[in-house]
Amino acid sequence: MRNQEHLRICTAFGKAIRQARVIRGLSQEKLAEFSDLNRTYIGDIERGKRNVSLVNMQKIATALDLKLSDLILSYEERK
Amino acid sequence: MRNQEHLRICTAFGKAIRQARVIRGLSQEKLAEFSDLNRTYIGDIERGKRNVSLVNMQKIATALDLKLSDLILSYEERK
Repeated sequence: MRNQEHLRICTAFGKAIRQARVIRGLSQEKLAEFSDLNRTYIGDIERGKRNVSLVNMQKIATALDLKLSDLILSYEERK
Repeated sequence: MRNQEHLRICTAFGKAIRQARVIRGLSQEKLAEFSDLNRTYIGDIERGKRNVSLVNMQKIATALDLKLSDLILSYEERK
């Protein structure tokens, strides 16, 4: 896979997370707290700088009170 | 997140991959080839030994000719 495709995937996922977070009126700090992840890490994910693992995706989806499949559907719309 | 929950997540995802692969009559070798990943790595994923990243999930879904959201739905049914 080309590097550009890697970036496109991570960017689309980051946008899906950011939208879901903003809709809920959550700050990055609150999402970090609810998902037991680092605030800087959440910021990096939203900017497409991280290739998130399944376990962390699940933590974030749960913190957003969202099914992971719905988060992935939102990612697919952006890809 | 407890270690047990981590294992449960990875195991459910591994089962979803294995089922999708077997339904298509693909060997682990073929799936590895199509997804440009290592055969041993595919075996580890299926046994719940790996916490797969988004980019590799997408590679596997594409190799299985499956939407990633459908693969995640199948994982959620097993979780």
